[in-house]
Amino acid sequence: MLLDCVPAREALGLAERTVLHSGPPLAWERACSPVQTAILCAIRYEGWARDDAGAARLVESGAVKLAPCHHSGAAGPMTGMVTASMPVFVVENRPRGNRAFATINEGLGKVLRFGANDESVVTRLRWLAAEIGPLLGAALRAAGGLDLRALMAQALRMGDEMHQRNVAASSLFARALMPHLARTAPDTAALARLADFIGGNDQFFLNLAMAAAKVAPDPCLDVAGTTMVATMARTGTDFGIRVAGLGPRWFTAPVNTPEGLYFAP
Amino acid sequence: MLLDCVPAREALGLAERTVLHSGPPLAWERACSPVQTAILCAIRYEGWARDDAGAARLVESGAVKLAPCHHSGAAGPMTGMVTASMPVFVVENRPRGNRAFATINEGLGKVLRFGANDESVVTRLRWLAAEIGPLLGAALRAAGGLDLRALMAQALRMGDEMHQRNVAASSLFARALMPHLARTAPDTAALARLADFIGGNDQFFLNLAMAAAKVAPDPCLDVAGTTMVATMARTGTDFGIRVAGLGPRWFTAPVNTPEGLYFAP
Repeated sequence: MLLDCVPAREALGLAERTVLHSGPPLAWERACSPVQTAILCAIRYEGWARDDAGAARLVESGAVKLAPCHHSGAAGPMTGMVTASMPVFVVENRPRGNRAFATINEGLGKVLRFGANDESVVTRLRWLAAEIGPLLGAALRAAGGLDLRALMAQALRMGDEMHQRNVAASSLFARALMPHLARTAPDTAALARLADFIGGNDQFFLNLAMAAAKVAPDPCLDVAGTTMVATMARTGTDFGIRVAGLGPRWFTAPVNTPEGLYFAP
Repeated sequence: MLLDCVPAREALGLAERTVLHSGPPLAWERACSPVQTAILCAIRYEGWARDDAGAARLVESGAVKLAPCHHSGAAGPMTGMVTASMPVFVVENRPRGNRAFATINEGLGKVLRFGANDESVVTRLRWLAAEIGPLLGAALRAAGGLDLRALMAQALRMGDEMHQRNVAASSLFARALMPHLARTAPDTAALARLADFIGGNDQFFLNLAMAAAKVAPDPCLDVAGTTMVATMARTGTDFGIRVAGLGPRWFTAPVNTPEGLYFAP
C-alpha cells in the first residue's frame, strides 16, 4: 500500500549531513564518476556546501556521511540519492507492518539519478520538495492510500515490466490519484504543473515499483535458515546481495561495464 | 485528430426534434425495446415531452424524427442516441478534411445507450452537457487537439481492442489531457468531478475509438467502383453495411440475438 509522500527526515528518520546511495556500502574513493557527481549535487541541494569542491571536502573529512539506501529502508534507481529534505513515497507491507521508501522520479535527461550535477538539477529537486511532494502526500492521505499490488498487476498485463517500461502503471497511477489531487490541491495552477510533470514522465512509476519490490521481501531478512536472496542492488562499482537467513551481511562483487549507448558526459 | 467537444447542434448541425440512433435506418415499430425506451428518454432529456407517453406520441406522429447517426457523421455505441444539446467529440481526418462525431461515454450501469430510461439517466446527461462537455472542449482547444491515432496505436499494444477493453486508452487520454484541463477548468472542484468521472469509467475511450474508426473510412464512400465495406453498423434489430463504391445505399439483414448474460430489465 502506498500511504504518503513526506520528507525523508520524517519518513525514515534520515539524519542531516547523510547521503543515501544505491547498492551495497560504498567508499567515496571507490564510487564511479556519476555517483560522485550526484553526491556532490545532493550536498549542494541541501545547502551543506556552496560548490562541488566544498562538498567533496565534507565527504572526504567525514562531515557528510555516505550510507546505502537499503540500510534505511529506501530504494532508488541508478545513483539512488536520498537526503533529508527530499520527499519520499511511503509504502507499507500491510501483513508485516514494515515500510519502504523511494524518492519521486525526476524524469529523463539531466537528473540526479544519472549523475547530472548542474543548477537545473538542483532547481527541479527543490521544486519537487516544495510543491510536488506536498501535493502528492495530501492526495494520498485523502485517498486513504493506493493499492500498489493491484495497480502493478494490471500494468504488468498491459506490457509494463516495472523497470524500463512504466507507461501503463504511470498512467493508471495518474488517473487513480487525480480526483484526490484535484480535491486537495490549493489551485488549478499547481495541478497543471503536477499534471505536466506526471504526464511528461513515462518513468514516473519506476521508483514506486522499487519501493514495492523492496517492502515485500524485506521481512525475510529476519527469517533464520532461509536461503532466499532478499536483496539485489548495485552501484556503478559493485553488485551486492543479501541472503535472508544471513541478515544484514552483504556479499559483493565488481559489476560489469555494460556495452551500449551512453548519455553525453 | 480529436479537436473539440461541443453540442451536436453546433458540431454536426443537428436539427431540434431529431433523434439519431445506431445502425441503418430504423422505423419506430421495428425498434427493439431498449432502443425505444432510449428514444423516449432522449426526448424527455431534451424537454420535448414530459413523459414517455407524450414522447411516444411525438415519434408516432412524426413530430420527432428518427435518423441514423451515420447519416449525420456520428457514431455511437449500443442504442447510439444523439440529440441536439448533447455534447459530442469532434474528430477530424486531417488528410481528407472530413469529420466524425461521438457523444461522451456515460459509463456502465443504467445509461441511455443500454436503454435505461429513468431520471438518473436524464440527470447524468444534463450534467454531461452542462459541465463535462464544456470542460473537455476547452481543454481540447487549449491542447490544439489530440492525436488519436498515436494514442490508439499505443493502447492497442497495451492490450486494448477499442471495444470492450479501453482501460489503456482511457488512462493515456486522461493523463494527456489533464494538464490542459487543469489550465482551463474554472476551479479544482469541477476538475475533481471530471477526474472522478473519467477515473471511474474504463470505457471512457470507447466513443472516441468509434468516431476515429468512422472518420478514416468515410471518404471511401465517394470512391466509385470500390468494393470495400466502408460502414458496418447495427441496432438490436438490423445489421447494415455500406459498400464504398455504392455510396449511401444500405444493405441490411436481421441481427441474431446473442446468447449471454443480460442486464436486469
